[in-house]
Amino acid sequence: MTLTYTRKVNFYETDAQGIVHHSNYPRYFEECRGFYLENIGLPYHILRDEYNVDVVLLELNIRYMNPLRFGDKFKIEFRLDSIDSYFFSFKYEIYTDKKIAEGFTKHCCVNSQTKRVIKVPKVLKDKMELRDVGRDS
Amino acid sequence: MTLTYTRKVNFYETDAQGIVHHSNYPRYFEECRGFYLENIGLPYHILRDEYNVDVVLLELNIRYMNPLRFGDKFKIEFRLDSIDSYFFSFKYEIYTDKKIAEGFTKHCCVNSQTKRVIKVPKVLKDKMELRDVGRDS
Amino acid sequence: MTLTYTRKVNFYETDAQGIVHHSNYPRYFEECRGFYLENIGLPYHILRDEYNVDVVLLELNIRYMNPLRFGDKFKIEFRLDSIDSYFFSFKYEIYTDKKIAEGFTKHCCVNSQTKRVIKVPKVLKDKMELRDVGRDS
Amino acid sequence: MTLTYTRKVNFYETDAQGIVHHSNYPRYFEECRGFYLENIGLPYHILRDEYNVDVVLLELNIRYMNPLRFGDKFKIEFRLDSIDSYFFSFKYEIYTDKKIAEGFTKHCCVNSQTKRVIKVPKVLKDKMELRDVGRDS
Repeated sequence: MTLTYTRKVNFYETDAQGIVHHSNYPRYFEECRGFYLENIGLPYHILRDEYNVDVVLLELNIRYMNPLRFGDKFKIEFRLDSIDSYFFSFKYEIYTDKKIAEGFTKHCCVNSQTKRVIKVPKVLKDKMELRDVGRDS
Repeated sequence: MTLTYTRKVNFYETDAQGIVHHSNYPRYFEECRGFYLENIGLPYHILRDEYNVDVVLLELNIRYMNPLRFGDKFKIEFRLDSIDSYFFSFKYEIYTDKKIAEGFTKHCCVNSQTKRVIKVPKVLKDKMELRDVGRDS
Repeated sequence: MTLTYTRKVNFYETDAQGIVHHSNYPRYFEECRGFYLENIGLPYHILRDEYNVDVVLLELNIRYMNPLRFGDKFKIEFRLDSIDSYFFSFKYEIYTDKKIAEGFTKHCCVNSQTKRVIKVPKVLKDKMELRDVGRDS
Repeated sequence: MTLTYTRKVNFYETDAQGIVHHSNYPRYFEECRGFYLENIGLPYHILRDEYNVDVVLLELNIRYMNPLRFGDKFKIEFRLDSIDSYFFSFKYEIYTDKKIAEGFTKHCCVNSQTKRVIKVPKVLKDKMELRDVGRDS
């Protein structure tokens, strides 16, 4: 299932080229994942505070196609791309009236005290798999 | 005693006005305090990891006089401005060939577990007071 | 007239103390001013692109009272505090269920090409003064 | 030729997991490229101001292997990976006493006024090719 997250550019996200600095895109993707976790009923702060689980980033890929400028409103269409016992990944596409960028992130979970890698907790995995994993909606 | 911290502007610190975004100045000041703590022999990560002490910001004032641009090298002259049982403050002046900004920050310490305000730990206060507190060097 | 801007904490805005890093507050205030300019019908990107006007920060004061944590939703109540031919200022108060911080910013305008200080453009000043300047609503 | 860029973690680069937030790695890579351009005798602000050239990011890949923590000193070993008429790319490896991450970025140049893609300017390409392109030193 594809979710759509909408956002506008903050001035402080621009750089001296007059466009959004590329280091903000991983932050936008993180906002998407926060939106996703809320959407499946397990907000990230609950996952952290009540289940002692931190989500860790293992891999990040971004292709930048067109710049975002101050004043732009954009949407990010994203979806869970894969999930197994230990890993899950997301794909993202950013659009204004044209395609801005596409991205991919891969994650695992760690115990927030020990920082050891753990299996994706059942409470999280079940909620994620209720969605149409990896199939375009 | 006045310390001098030197730095150059990173491109990602600029904004679409072509200057360093103002939200980076508190970060520069934080770098100064890190440099200060190293300089008095008690690096902040030691203070946090071995003494369980977090330094908290209570007050921040900045006057912006001239912009910093990409390519600029600048120096920050700063010094401990005051210290008592619970509070301490710093003053900062940023220069290139002209004066860029001046700032002030006020702090206290908290126990990093309980987050409760504590007295400035003796180990820290002693080292800070060894310096010529609040007098221009 | 007091405006209210609501927001939640992004994970990337937190630091290793487990709270929102203080350098994000000036960014929240900037978001407020963007919201204000939209609210008076002159969005900042219009002011920049059509009127060639950049708004510059001259002074920033923040008092930090309580930390913001990941998962927090907060509101910023803010209002234009003063305006004259060259300068204008805003006051801000951040709340969750308790008071988090209060702030003050002072600004002027510059020509975005020459970067020279200019009077607050009439189109902007008129719209700002239509509001109940400096009086609590 | 491999260059080595050294750096320490700033506190404001950490997040509530107690590690450097992943969005800082692209910023570290940008610092490396700035260091590279200085090293070949064509600092980025000169390239921008005198040659009217902006370097744009087209692609970013990062594999995160181990976290960076506050207090860590790290080095980034990086090198130009490829260059042709329009594109060039870099590879990066971050180390403390263990491997932290590896990354890849691909770039092109644009005219900083028109924002149109241009060939890699001869002045830049010549200096880059003087190095041992794509071969480990």
